[in-house]
Amino acid sequence: MHKPYYAVIFTSTRTTGDKGYGKMAEFMELLAKKQPGFIGIESAREKTGITVSYWESLSAIHDWKQQADHVLAQKKGITDWYNSYTVRICLVEREYNFNKNT
Amino acid sequence: MHKPYYAVIFTSTRTTGDKGYGKMAEFMELLAKKQPGFIGIESAREKTGITVSYWESLSAIHDWKQQADHVLAQKKGITDWYNSYTVRICLVEREYNFNKNT
Repeated sequence: MHKPYYAVIFTSTRTTGDKGYGKMAEFMELLAKKQPGFIGIESAREKTGITVSYWESLSAIHDWKQQADHVLAQKKGITDWYNSYTVRICLVEREYNFNKNT
Repeated sequence: MHKPYYAVIFTSTRTTGDKGYGKMAEFMELLAKKQPGFIGIESAREKTGITVSYWESLSAIHDWKQQADHVLAQKKGITDWYNSYTVRICLVEREYNFNKNT
């Protein structure tokens, strides 16, 4: 059994042009990995971008949301980078895996 | 306030070659949309593929997992299409949105 943990599903559509987005996204991922309670992160973008990050607790998610550089990035997200986004904070209730090589 | 609902996060890495995957993925999306309790679906693939589908209840998720064509697709997923995958069934506890045009 896993300890209960949380997933934050961030789905977004971008504005046109990079405008410093790529660099900041990389930096945010590095910073997130240093946050207490961080478990992991996965991203993919086509028409929609989806980033899922995993956290040990709601308070870890809250602290990351308040992290100073992340707050700045959130502001730039609204003014420059995103046409739209949705953040969903989710309790992972069950999971299962398949791996060909194990 | 939203009614409580669920997100199924499906993350995967593919084997090489299409092997009928693209067609089946499209067909599965069409079928999922017809399932009772289906709310929505979002996907993106780069190195990792992420598909998040949204459902009204755990029983709706269970019924979709048992749907006959979907069962066949799951089998082909294991034999042909995926190197690895993880399925996480999550209760959406909170959400918020940004939309530039509203």
